[in-house]
Amino acid sequence: MDDKVNLAEKVGQLDKPYSPGIVGYLNDFKLQVVKVQGRFVWHSHEDTDDFFFVLRGRLTIHLRDRDIELAEGELFVVPRGVEHCPEADEEAHVLLIEPKRTPNTGDAGGELTAEEVDL
Amino acid sequence: MDDKVNLAEKVGQLDKPYSPGIVGYLNDFKLQVVKVQGRFVWHSHEDTDDFFFVLRGRLTIHLRDRDIELAEGELFVVPRGVEHCPEADEEAHVLLIEPKRTPNTGDAGGELTAEEVDL
Repeated sequence: MDDKVNLAEKVGQLDKPYSPGIVGYLNDFKLQVVKVQGRFVWHSHEDTDDFFFVLRGRLTIHLRDRDIELAEGELFVVPRGVEHCPEADEEAHVLLIEPKRTPNTGDAGGELTAEEVDL
Repeated sequence: MDDKVNLAEKVGQLDKPYSPGIVGYLNDFKLQVVKVQGRFVWHSHEDTDDFFFVLRGRLTIHLRDRDIELAEGELFVVPRGVEHCPEADEEAHVLLIEPKRTPNTGDAGGELTAEEVDL
């Protein structure tokens, strides 16, 4: 983790949607890449904001009162405690930044909860 | 700051190199875009790692023992306490993430020290 990181190369090491891989750390935060395809689960994170930056494709972040539509080169930070549900019709590649040990499914849990995996 | 952020649009609002603009926050961190052209100053941050992601162009991060050469889509996290000096021959656009109130020139200070400005 003491060298540069090419995010497209790291995304290429992911084998399925919604299984993020850790590519580095920033203090107590993990830097992750993830493939998004289909609809995730509604969830929130009580203790942290949640950073999404679209590297490729298009991502919708559903909020209870509106949708955030992100194209390549656009980011959105979901405020702590705010329910959200990511979705992409076609495969999208996303950079995520959250504190270490933040579960991807937040308060929802369930079968889409992913282990923390270093790429 | 409760809407999405298009980073290329934000970079377009910057008027000169090495004057970063804040485009959002992630917990206690500021998300900044900056134009890099020419050579910055050698400095370090005793209390924090320092995140660089190249949005456009090429960026060299000089370390005392080697150079990190970043192209578009590549990132590097300078570990806390490590001296570094960013440089770009041609204008490059970079996303920076650091804790709020982290000075851009770290321990070096001087005339390149920038105010925190919201875009």
